[in-house]
Amino acid sequence: MLQSPPAEPGMREDEVDTPALILDLDAFEHNLDTMAGFLAGTNVKLRAHAKTHKSPVIARLQMDRGAIGQCVQKVGEAEILAWGGVPDVMVTNQVVGARKLARLAALAKISRVSICVDDPAQVAAIEQAAEAAGVRIPVLVEIDVGGKRCGVQAGPPAVALAEVIAASKHLRFYGIQAYHGSAQHIRDPQVRATAIASAVEASRRTVEQLRQRGLECPVVGGAGSGSFQHELASGVYTELQAGSYAFMDADYARNTEAPPFQHALFVLATVMSASSPQVAVVDAGHKAMPTDSGFPVVSGRPGVSYVSASDEHGKLTVEDPALRPRLGEKLRLIPGHCDPTVDRYDWYVGVRKGRVESLWPVAARGAMA
Amino acid sequence: MLQSPPAEPGMREDEVDTPALILDLDAFEHNLDTMAGFLAGTNVKLRAHAKTHKSPVIARLQMDRGAIGQCVQKVGEAEILAWGGVPDVMVTNQVVGARKLARLAALAKISRVSICVDDPAQVAAIEQAAEAAGVRIPVLVEIDVGGKRCGVQAGPPAVALAEVIAASKHLRFYGIQAYHGSAQHIRDPQVRATAIASAVEASRRTVEQLRQRGLECPVVGGAGSGSFQHELASGVYTELQAGSYAFMDADYARNTEAPPFQHALFVLATVMSASSPQVAVVDAGHKAMPTDSGFPVVSGRPGVSYVSASDEHGKLTVEDPALRPRLGEKLRLIPGHCDPTVDRYDWYVGVRKGRVESLWPVAARGAMA
Repeated sequence: MLQSPPAEPGMREDEVDTPALILDLDAFEHNLDTMAGFLAGTNVKLRAHAKTHKSPVIARLQMDRGAIGQCVQKVGEAEILAWGGVPDVMVTNQVVGARKLARLAALAKISRVSICVDDPAQVAAIEQAAEAAGVRIPVLVEIDVGGKRCGVQAGPPAVALAEVIAASKHLRFYGIQAYHGSAQHIRDPQVRATAIASAVEASRRTVEQLRQRGLECPVVGGAGSGSFQHELASGVYTELQAGSYAFMDADYARNTEAPPFQHALFVLATVMSASSPQVAVVDAGHKAMPTDSGFPVVSGRPGVSYVSASDEHGKLTVEDPALRPRLGEKLRLIPGHCDPTVDRYDWYVGVRKGRVESLWPVAARGAMA
Repeated sequence: MLQSPPAEPGMREDEVDTPALILDLDAFEHNLDTMAGFLAGTNVKLRAHAKTHKSPVIARLQMDRGAIGQCVQKVGEAEILAWGGVPDVMVTNQVVGARKLARLAALAKISRVSICVDDPAQVAAIEQAAEAAGVRIPVLVEIDVGGKRCGVQAGPPAVALAEVIAASKHLRFYGIQAYHGSAQHIRDPQVRATAIASAVEASRRTVEQLRQRGLECPVVGGAGSGSFQHELASGVYTELQAGSYAFMDADYARNTEAPPFQHALFVLATVMSASSPQVAVVDAGHKAMPTDSGFPVVSGRPGVSYVSASDEHGKLTVEDPALRPRLGEKLRLIPGHCDPTVDRYDWYVGVRKGRVESLWPVAARGAMA
């Protein structure tokens, strides 16, 4: 079952049922405008990552401000966006399995859908799916620019794979995917800049070698909210794939020289127990807010710390008992990691100046396949 | 939107789309039977915890083997069980907020619903909700038996709160909730036994003091899958609240003298990239399987380790390249922590001897409020 919306438009924020996913609309719009401002007057485009927001509504607000489309990681996410009217969706990931590829090829009838590969066997599988569906699919080669996860090596291995794509009748070689995920959260800005410089260099070299083989490379895609200013300035990247910038989580805020965005996403929680003087327990634990990137920060409440999570409980402590939140009080928590937090909820509760303004479904919630 | 089922009955397991939540039915039934065997011939009852499974189907299978009802942590879970035919549901948790209490009181018309408190203000709020709904609600006092989270202190503070309940016209004092959550994962069996002995002693003392004040204590509830044999033998506890025993996760298996259950729950994942000789990447990361209790274990594949997770990727490494899983291969992962893993999925895929036998909805998926 879907969960009922925890609020109605017009309610005060403190009337919203908890745990709830709160989107502070003023901060959110500030973030969208700020990113649009960075790209204005450049040749670089934003292709915002929907793995963060999972919402065709938010995709449209990003495209209204100049984004050329959306990225996703999963076919299920691509479906939700295409069905929700997004005309250009890039799967910045490998997709393995005939059933998934058939779903993706079917989508190519209603939206432009592109995809990444790092293995010639996958090129053959996508070619087969595209032929069966009667579509032509743009395919990118993912190169490993330092994450040591997916992707072929830059240079000759990438060129060889691009040639396999270019030789496939129902595919089109579309460019390279060069995202350095692990660099996003490097705290030291110099070390982060060095990591991205290396990714830029690997991309530049690959693009040149592709040209030497007669392969134009329309797209060089990558960048996240922790590093996008470097890729933007590189002269090599053509599309930025930031997603978290729209929400800005607690972990990104821990980067030295944090990204220039405001916290816009919160989990609203209620104090459900306050039976000792320096402890308050809220109704939001692991299930409400994954803790892979640390515990949440209690917004606007200095002296109150979220110190441990169990499945349905979060334990807050205070040094000064006078600061302890009271039983029944509602608190905004800034999640450690926005992407998996959003994926726990069925609804965004959009709030402006203390009042609920909008309810938007997290339409691709759980779209893992 | 709900996600489509990733399988159909009759399919081979390796045809199931991934990531998928696999329930190995032979192992699962073995676990249910094993727990029933522990309680057979005793006066102690199982009230299995549905925070783990979130399914009225699994609740029924537990009750078919003697469980007297179910525990839940959230009103939303209580609703799904009561609507799904479970006649006796205990909320082993505090519930704060008039809207939630009104929902709970409404459920009391169709199922027996009990609830815990650790604050007199909550007794008053439940009394008001019960009166408004025209029902009488059984209420337990939660005592802190070592978790230092929710609960009043054992002894006189618990007795004082019980007297407030007993004096409330629409409530009934129903007993004490004495669950030692943090003891479940203490690795050393002696240290774990000592922690539970202390919980037993606090409960025994509280029950005696309640009797001295003329308050009978029909229920002493607690115990989890890591400790239940101690509470069972205590002579004090009347109801055991184990949940994970049905599935048995990787973290419980790390206890010295692990609980006597088999791994029955798996995340089925596909190798989506294998572009270097000692690395394979699967399509199941943080979003598929929270990592708060460690990374998953790759089932049946010695020499293959799940070493890091990002949102949509899991990185496996092998020391011997000959052991590397191949591109497209499907692997069973044993989740670190079964409860929040189940809560990521819309469907259980029940498998027996390699074939899909049943699809059951995770009906209370996301029921956090």
